[in-house]
Amino acid sequence: MHNVDWQLDEIVTQLRATRETWRERHGRSRERGCRELPSRSAIRAITDDLIGALFPMRLGPSDLRRESEDFYVGHTLDATLNALCHEVCLELKYIARQLGRDAGDTQARAVEVVQGFAAGLPELRRQLDADVMAAYHGDPAARSVDEVLLCYPGVHAVIHHRIANYFYQADLSLLARMIAEIAHSDTGIDIHPGATIGEGFFIDHGTGVVIGETAIIGNNVRLYQAVTLGAKRFPADERGHLEKGLPRHPVVEDDVVIYAGATILGRITIGKGSIIGGNVWLTRDVEPGSNVTQANLQSGPCP
Amino acid sequence: MHNVDWQLDEIVTQLRATRETWRERHGRSRERGCRELPSRSAIRAITDDLIGALFPMRLGPSDLRRESEDFYVGHTLDATLNALCHEVCLELKYIARQLGRDAGDTQARAVEVVQGFAAGLPELRRQLDADVMAAYHGDPAARSVDEVLLCYPGVHAVIHHRIANYFYQADLSLLARMIAEIAHSDTGIDIHPGATIGEGFFIDHGTGVVIGETAIIGNNVRLYQAVTLGAKRFPADERGHLEKGLPRHPVVEDDVVIYAGATILGRITIGKGSIIGGNVWLTRDVEPGSNVTQANLQSGPCP
Amino acid sequence: MHNVDWQLDEIVTQLRATRETWRERHGRSRERGCRELPSRSAIRAITDDLIGALFPMRLGPSDLRRESEDFYVGHTLDATLNALCHEVCLELKYIARQLGRDAGDTQARAVEVVQGFAAGLPELRRQLDADVMAAYHGDPAARSVDEVLLCYPGVHAVIHHRIANYFYQADLSLLARMIAEIAHSDTGIDIHPGATIGEGFFIDHGTGVVIGETAIIGNNVRLYQAVTLGAKRFPADERGHLEKGLPRHPVVEDDVVIYAGATILGRITIGKGSIIGGNVWLTRDVEPGSNVTQANLQSGPCP
Amino acid sequence: MHNVDWQLDEIVTQLRATRETWRERHGRSRERGCRELPSRSAIRAITDDLIGALFPMRLGPSDLRRESEDFYVGHTLDATLNALCHEVCLELKYIARQLGRDAGDTQARAVEVVQGFAAGLPELRRQLDADVMAAYHGDPAARSVDEVLLCYPGVHAVIHHRIANYFYQADLSLLARMIAEIAHSDTGIDIHPGATIGEGFFIDHGTGVVIGETAIIGNNVRLYQAVTLGAKRFPADERGHLEKGLPRHPVVEDDVVIYAGATILGRITIGKGSIIGGNVWLTRDVEPGSNVTQANLQSGPCP
Amino acid sequence: MHNVDWQLDEIVTQLRATRETWRERHGRSRERGCRELPSRSAIRAITDDLIGALFPMRLGPSDLRRESEDFYVGHTLDATLNALCHEVCLELKYIARQLGRDAGDTQARAVEVVQGFAAGLPELRRQLDADVMAAYHGDPAARSVDEVLLCYPGVHAVIHHRIANYFYQADLSLLARMIAEIAHSDTGIDIHPGATIGEGFFIDHGTGVVIGETAIIGNNVRLYQAVTLGAKRFPADERGHLEKGLPRHPVVEDDVVIYAGATILGRITIGKGSIIGGNVWLTRDVEPGSNVTQANLQSGPCP
Amino acid sequence: MHNVDWQLDEIVTQLRATRETWRERHGRSRERGCRELPSRSAIRAITDDLIGALFPMRLGPSDLRRESEDFYVGHTLDATLNALCHEVCLELKYIARQLGRDAGDTQARAVEVVQGFAAGLPELRRQLDADVMAAYHGDPAARSVDEVLLCYPGVHAVIHHRIANYFYQADLSLLARMIAEIAHSDTGIDIHPGATIGEGFFIDHGTGVVIGETAIIGNNVRLYQAVTLGAKRFPADERGHLEKGLPRHPVVEDDVVIYAGATILGRITIGKGSIIGGNVWLTRDVEPGSNVTQANLQSGPCP
Repeated sequence: MHNVDWQLDEIVTQLRATRETWRERHGRSRERGCRELPSRSAIRAITDDLIGALFPMRLGPSDLRRESEDFYVGHTLDATLNALCHEVCLELKYIARQLGRDAGDTQARAVEVVQGFAAGLPELRRQLDADVMAAYHGDPAARSVDEVLLCYPGVHAVIHHRIANYFYQADLSLLARMIAEIAHSDTGIDIHPGATIGEGFFIDHGTGVVIGETAIIGNNVRLYQAVTLGAKRFPADERGHLEKGLPRHPVVEDDVVIYAGATILGRITIGKGSIIGGNVWLTRDVEPGSNVTQANLQSGPCP
Repeated sequence: MHNVDWQLDEIVTQLRATRETWRERHGRSRERGCRELPSRSAIRAITDDLIGALFPMRLGPSDLRRESEDFYVGHTLDATLNALCHEVCLELKYIARQLGRDAGDTQARAVEVVQGFAAGLPELRRQLDADVMAAYHGDPAARSVDEVLLCYPGVHAVIHHRIANYFYQADLSLLARMIAEIAHSDTGIDIHPGATIGEGFFIDHGTGVVIGETAIIGNNVRLYQAVTLGAKRFPADERGHLEKGLPRHPVVEDDVVIYAGATILGRITIGKGSIIGGNVWLTRDVEPGSNVTQANLQSGPCP
Repeated sequence: MHNVDWQLDEIVTQLRATRETWRERHGRSRERGCRELPSRSAIRAITDDLIGALFPMRLGPSDLRRESEDFYVGHTLDATLNALCHEVCLELKYIARQLGRDAGDTQARAVEVVQGFAAGLPELRRQLDADVMAAYHGDPAARSVDEVLLCYPGVHAVIHHRIANYFYQADLSLLARMIAEIAHSDTGIDIHPGATIGEGFFIDHGTGVVIGETAIIGNNVRLYQAVTLGAKRFPADERGHLEKGLPRHPVVEDDVVIYAGATILGRITIGKGSIIGGNVWLTRDVEPGSNVTQANLQSGPCP
Repeated sequence: MHNVDWQLDEIVTQLRATRETWRERHGRSRERGCRELPSRSAIRAITDDLIGALFPMRLGPSDLRRESEDFYVGHTLDATLNALCHEVCLELKYIARQLGRDAGDTQARAVEVVQGFAAGLPELRRQLDADVMAAYHGDPAARSVDEVLLCYPGVHAVIHHRIANYFYQADLSLLARMIAEIAHSDTGIDIHPGATIGEGFFIDHGTGVVIGETAIIGNNVRLYQAVTLGAKRFPADERGHLEKGLPRHPVVEDDVVIYAGATILGRITIGKGSIIGGNVWLTRDVEPGSNVTQANLQSGPCP
Repeated sequence: MHNVDWQLDEIVTQLRATRETWRERHGRSRERGCRELPSRSAIRAITDDLIGALFPMRLGPSDLRRESEDFYVGHTLDATLNALCHEVCLELKYIARQLGRDAGDTQARAVEVVQGFAAGLPELRRQLDADVMAAYHGDPAARSVDEVLLCYPGVHAVIHHRIANYFYQADLSLLARMIAEIAHSDTGIDIHPGATIGEGFFIDHGTGVVIGETAIIGNNVRLYQAVTLGAKRFPADERGHLEKGLPRHPVVEDDVVIYAGATILGRITIGKGSIIGGNVWLTRDVEPGSNVTQANLQSGPCP
Repeated sequence: MHNVDWQLDEIVTQLRATRETWRERHGRSRERGCRELPSRSAIRAITDDLIGALFPMRLGPSDLRRESEDFYVGHTLDATLNALCHEVCLELKYIARQLGRDAGDTQARAVEVVQGFAAGLPELRRQLDADVMAAYHGDPAARSVDEVLLCYPGVHAVIHHRIANYFYQADLSLLARMIAEIAHSDTGIDIHPGATIGEGFFIDHGTGVVIGETAIIGNNVRLYQAVTLGAKRFPADERGHLEKGLPRHPVVEDDVVIYAGATILGRITIGKGSIIGGNVWLTRDVEPGSNVTQANLQSGPCP
């Protein structure tokens, strides 16, 4: 590359001009210093470590011995909660900057958020155990709970969701979204961190599943690949602005099974114990105990 | 983080209690020592190395010269087969523990399994060459066999499947499943390691494809994205337990093409040379040479 | 593994025989030396660095300060453009070998290609800014442009596509395809690098989207997950060979929205401002301003 | 490197012949399988982790908080003691092979050795604290005990020696030697792991210090760079073979100071409280309280 | 390791007790939170990057092109000066804790220190160029200035010293000492960061050289291996405490050459242009232009 | 670091000015493109791999099995010889630039050099085996040849020297020097790559040993730490320039032993079988079979 001239000075100058145009449009021209935003790679590392601490003998280090589980869990949690606290601080400061507000004592608020998360870890583990059992019982091909925990993408996605949801509820939407997108990239399962999901939840195969922000899912629900729980329309206020946070995704009651490719849209309710057939397109309420199939198709399980 | 108290002792204690509850329920309270289970990261490394040894000048190290291919192949196989043997041992011991049986001479059994795998590598390479040719001939956009081998996710998934299937047949279902899930995560193509797949198999695009455990696919079959070869129902025995291993997924005969989004369920047979249109929902046998399209839709190829 | 004999000499010999069979069939028996092909891992590193240089304070190193952005951008571009130039050379030589032609001055041609790419970077950044704005405005759940840039898989895929498309147009199809497949693997969104895509393009959720090589997409188009813009049939010439490069994928005019799961096939035109409903199967032209929904289903937005 | 032929087959064959010659001479022609020897890189990692566990807030991970020291120490020790046990097994098997003996239950013996080591860790820490204090008091340039622990090569060497000496006494000479040579390479201080060293030992600067296998050093001794405590002659038995293990290096009693470059040879005794001047050459006993200087030189401290 | 019990709880408890004893003795029982001390590995990375920025085309990244040197230098300095500033803060806080003082605005003080260092970089580079020239002219075996810069341990040590000395003068003795000990470990050359060294300084071979804290070395001085510029005695005040900071090491005037193994002790002056022979032991002033050799030995150069 | 201004533009500009001053002085102002110089880190990796290929079961990968040694050796040599060839090319081009000559066909010359090196590897291994045996027999503390090979710094230094010497003889002095300095940094033993060293050479302890460029050492010679084989004076031609390459270091004949700290200077000859005592200063020839000791000191071995 001896005689190559990439005209770098020119390109660098033009790229800066392009960035400045963007920043002016977004009112950021005078910001200085570092990016203060949560980092996706940091969050992946934190999430992996949390999962290791939750399931030390299955998803922790392969040379861990049961005799020293507690040492591993304690040491890992200390390092990870500190790292998490740092990311929370970054997002709190970011939110304050976005809102043009003083950030206040972000450190204290971050500690509070992370303490709440930490205190909930035992309950989180209990919930995840129930999800693993649901997967084990829901798939005839599952040979052991270990296979489920080690191999099932649906379980991987649900673990991430239950972590992400905590931070969504704490109004840390970037952090929550990053955790959700890590699972989305790994599994093809796209669960918005705002979705409310009950106990014993299982997604089989999973690729293409989309679950929206205001969806509510009861206990013991089972989904297959490519199921959408989406919005039917986006309500706008009188000025034509999309209204945020309005309930717009389905409510799925306890013990419902939804087969592959079903598309369920809008703030409708799928009653307790219903079975929704594969590829069904559904935009109205369904009575408890229904068995909905595509009009011109045979009903039945599809995986 | 100077004055933060995460209450770690309390959380660690509660997490231990939660783990103990789980272990008691699963009869594992008295286990000691290390996890003895195959490791997903080890299996990814092994699979990558095997693929390098199978296609040294395309998927091996970029500085390899053809003059020393054999040295590379031999050295890589020795290290990789040993590593594989170690993982096989771990699963054999795990199976024995699960069954409450004595593990016996797992080392000897593991060596036998891996020797069988090693002896089959030349035939495996021949099969994969046929898959690559099928992809090259099946996609008008393919410019070279190298592009196919280096870029096509469908080929990546099939390579993993043909490796995974050997271990599935050797009753090492965790190992087989881990290999399959590596490909699933990379490509969005979910082939159960138990599926039987003939020569010259090609999946184009591939995201969302699901192929079930007892599916049987003939020679020269081509699938597009989001095709499901699934189960229609799960037969149960008189006690209501799901029966495992019963044939419950489709048989796809030679020379069949299945377009994107088709859902084919149950132990039905798609006759030789048939073409199944996009988005078709199919739960009955199809005569050889059929051209099946959605009732109210035009038939035809879709990607 | 003390007494294990993997019969490596035998396996290595057979694998060589298999490779030689393949090489003879493809006329490569006499090639020597290294692989001369672009490397997927090198291309991933290059793409990541280019993205960092395009969005230094969001996707560059987390400790970068705005004060030294230009240093970072210049240094990164110099290293990355050189690395890219090396990969371009490898593909140019490869193409010449494939065609049995003299490679000529690949270095000079590679420099020309990369200079063109480098000169277009500021415009590329401007286009990507428009894509980010389209995503921000198109999704009611998006809280900030930063969330869009950091988290949205659709944006990740479009960034990769706009880079890949440059190299596709420069007849470097392997390099282009590798870039596209990196995004496909990360996001489940499969955009052929040959597709022509206008300004302000947004894909929401994205898993399962397939966009074909000759598709043409106008400005301000929005797609949801699992949309296919595919070919209906593959035209063949009088000798039965598939004709390459013929327009065979849809034209989507400005301001079109296509909801999840819609399958649109063949060289048809979706007129300006149309809305295509979820799961629609479409193989005919659509007038501007149309609202197409599945015959027996309710129309409406689906995400 | 396209047309280069390194004649690898020829070189590989000749190298094998050379190795076989060596192995025949050493009676190793029929050995199979892996190297079973401690690994220097494994031992470096183990030693670093042990040092971290001994001084968690100074030489452990930089983000460790005092609140979770015990978790870190416990987790690190568990992993490290297991790794150490593995290396001890390798040496025990190696020794048995060397002696042509059955290795017996190396695992049990290794566990015993490592348990002894583990039980001695608190006392080891106490001794090292005394060494740190000796360094702090012995060097007018030392500003704090932290500087001593973090920066002084003499302290680094003594920590390694006290660990190595345990394994030397357990007849694991390879392991002991590897630990000693790690320190030698880092600091230029060469202490044979067999040397017996009392409390509060300090070496300043240290480069070039050599302390022999049978040297005995009392409490509160201080050495400077390039001091040799060596053998004067090597006693041989009647067959002319060097006799191993005979006391042949000096005894240095409590409270002795030896200045830079002094060479002290043979099984002589340097009496309590003596001061040995720089560059002195000494091969005879020295009374307690002596002040020995080079004949034609001025006496006095030299660092 | 299945049935091994390392008695970790017991050992961890005892180790804690040992640490607490130490902390009580040093008044640190109530400290909480992280270690706040400069990190040796961070300092090594910083030093390496500074050296790369000072000599970009020789000691920077191997793929750097001269065309983009400034981008590299700017980007590297920004990241490195920030990292350095962080380490300086850590030491300032540490010093305050040691002194029981309020740390005050350590950030502002750290910025000031690092700004001073940064402003001096061009002059530092000029000085180092003079040192390289001195080495090139001083060693008949040197073939080029590049060989000197890339290979000579003496140059490596002097680069580190000139960096370390800045921080020593800024009263950051830990940081300074860590930089010096990195060079000591790499080269066996032990220069206290407090030593004052003039222009065009060269140490050949270097192993075993020791230069004390208050040594003053003029311009164009050349040393060989194992030379000591040490203290003769340590003055104590009336209470018997060693007095710190008193001048106690030699003054070496311009143009002096000191051959290998010479030991020069105390606050003496070696006059301009003198030559000190190998292995000489010297504790008195030397007139300018002297040629000092060992009494009973031949004089002359020794390398 | 939000409000910190390092004045980077100013510093970068001044650093550039300093570099330009240097380059003008050295006639390098118009050079463009990359550094073309061997890289120390590349050379360390190459040297480590060569050593692994020479001693596969001792210094190669720890999981290597004897059954596949040849594969490992062949694969490693192919990659390493190619990498070495690249470094040789870089130095050949550098030399040509230094001399202002056309580089000619550096690739061909580099291949020739490396082929010669490769062809000599079996003989090199044989020589190193003899060195290992010499160490084993020369040190009463050595328990096995494996300990010698794995732990002895003297052996490490000699392996590097024998490799470096080949490249020195091929006029690749930078490459040779880099290899030598790697060993110097690891061991404190400084052997100029030009030194000629016979069979069965052993250095014990080694720190501080210096062996000059034109030294000639016979067979079965043994040295201890801190021995210097140096030049007494540097002959200059009539213009006062130091003459390069003139013999100026000692000739040490077969079977000589030189104890620690001996300084031997000038083109003198130490006759066959002599023993040179510790700390001796020697600048005259010594008859074969002599036993030289320091005048006023006791004679005798010193290690």
